[in-house]
Amino acid sequence: MMLLHPGAMGASIGSAIAGNGHSVLWVPDGRSDATTLRATDARFEEVGFLDAASRAEVVVSVVPPGAAMSVATEVADSGFDGIYADFNAIAPHSATQISEAFSHYVDGGIVGPPAWEIGTTRLALSGPRAKEIESLFADSPVEVINLGSEIGKASAFKIGFAAWTKGSGSLLLLICAYARSVGVEKELFQEWERRGMPLEAQSESVAQQMGPKGWRFGDEMREISGALEAAGLGNGFFDHAGETFDRLAHRKNVTDRRLTLEEVTQDLLQVFPKT
Amino acid sequence: MMLLHPGAMGASIGSAIAGNGHSVLWVPDGRSDATTLRATDARFEEVGFLDAASRAEVVVSVVPPGAAMSVATEVADSGFDGIYADFNAIAPHSATQISEAFSHYVDGGIVGPPAWEIGTTRLALSGPRAKEIESLFADSPVEVINLGSEIGKASAFKIGFAAWTKGSGSLLLLICAYARSVGVEKELFQEWERRGMPLEAQSESVAQQMGPKGWRFGDEMREISGALEAAGLGNGFFDHAGETFDRLAHRKNVTDRRLTLEEVTQDLLQVFPKT
Repeated sequence: MMLLHPGAMGASIGSAIAGNGHSVLWVPDGRSDATTLRATDARFEEVGFLDAASRAEVVVSVVPPGAAMSVATEVADSGFDGIYADFNAIAPHSATQISEAFSHYVDGGIVGPPAWEIGTTRLALSGPRAKEIESLFADSPVEVINLGSEIGKASAFKIGFAAWTKGSGSLLLLICAYARSVGVEKELFQEWERRGMPLEAQSESVAQQMGPKGWRFGDEMREISGALEAAGLGNGFFDHAGETFDRLAHRKNVTDRRLTLEEVTQDLLQVFPKT
Repeated sequence: MMLLHPGAMGASIGSAIAGNGHSVLWVPDGRSDATTLRATDARFEEVGFLDAASRAEVVVSVVPPGAAMSVATEVADSGFDGIYADFNAIAPHSATQISEAFSHYVDGGIVGPPAWEIGTTRLALSGPRAKEIESLFADSPVEVINLGSEIGKASAFKIGFAAWTKGSGSLLLLICAYARSVGVEKELFQEWERRGMPLEAQSESVAQQMGPKGWRFGDEMREISGALEAAGLGNGFFDHAGETFDRLAHRKNVTDRRLTLEEVTQDLLQVFPKT
């Protein structure tokens, strides 16, 4: 199996597959030191891209949503003719579009944190050959939800789940920034508290957890926006959520400490300056 | 005091003021049977519009957000020269705009249900003469938060509070409709449940409580959208929320029973038909 690429999530997915006795190939070209460290720790086999594409029976793509298409195109262009399994947070129509470049495609969507413990992480799969991909994860920390043969269903499931967690998260950050900009932040936080709504703490938690991931959540929000629009449900919500996360993209490197709501609020108000 | 108009909220506000010994005038012209019943029960004094405008020292406006401007214009055109207190869910810039038609203006925003019990309903006030309006509510079920002399602050407080309750509510309704349209509703509800997120019950509750109010929440969402945009925080979220509530406007008359999530989901998918 060729894994593109061993990020925090990808490394855990590759390890689950390796645990079932399959060799996991990875391509170090262009990857970061952190990725190399993860791949080395996991004992993945380092190979050149074309070598991997010709040897692997399965390619698993776990990349930021904005890179899903270009990574797929690169694999398709190599002449790869096994099963291409795309586990990325993309819209069903994006999954369908990518699937057209491959003879065999399995749609996937991951819910939860990197899969190092049983019971935390679920992988939705769909497509005619979903069962073969499911079998790679037998008795692993990755729990599979097989949604049948239709490409797009697994992506739709992931979209639905992320739409709340990340959509509501970006909404909270926006509201906190608004309240600050008009000078009613303290009063709003007090009002939430007296009504038993723990939203100040939740906003702080969203800032900590999602702030450093804003650089990839922007593209994910735009995939969600496209998915809702394709379902005839209008748009706007998730384009705005995407814009909001985009403004936190420069926080990508904040991994050594917690990001604060104060920092995120200032980011949002500085990048969207008050007029 | 002239009250425009004794809706469910307005009647409770008028009663709080009446409880302090002030006469409450109301204008039956063009109002519904339900409004007449509420005003009669509360023993408000029925008068003609011009009579009320010349007699009243204070006019309090509690109307749907989309009617705030036209009601204010009507009062201003009558030559009213007392304090105009607008308690509607409008953006700070809308409040400022309305204030320009009056010599004396107090900005207000109501948080909570109709004010029949102590501890449920808070009225934010701001403006140079906010203290005079505050005094009308002494020892009443309406708890006042005086935000100082700046017109717009009370509206901003209300915007911030409503942005979460109604923004997150519309987000949930949209997500449920999306999941239905792509056939992953059951799986999404199960995923929420296994992660301890009581969102299916919350969606049902939002449908019940907000569905019948969609007819006026659409305009309120557009006020919020304008407020965020004026603060330099982008737009999209609340225009989409407004569109979503607009599609429930025909449920205005569902007051005799609970609206269900199933009905709301079907409304959203029918009015935004799947393409």
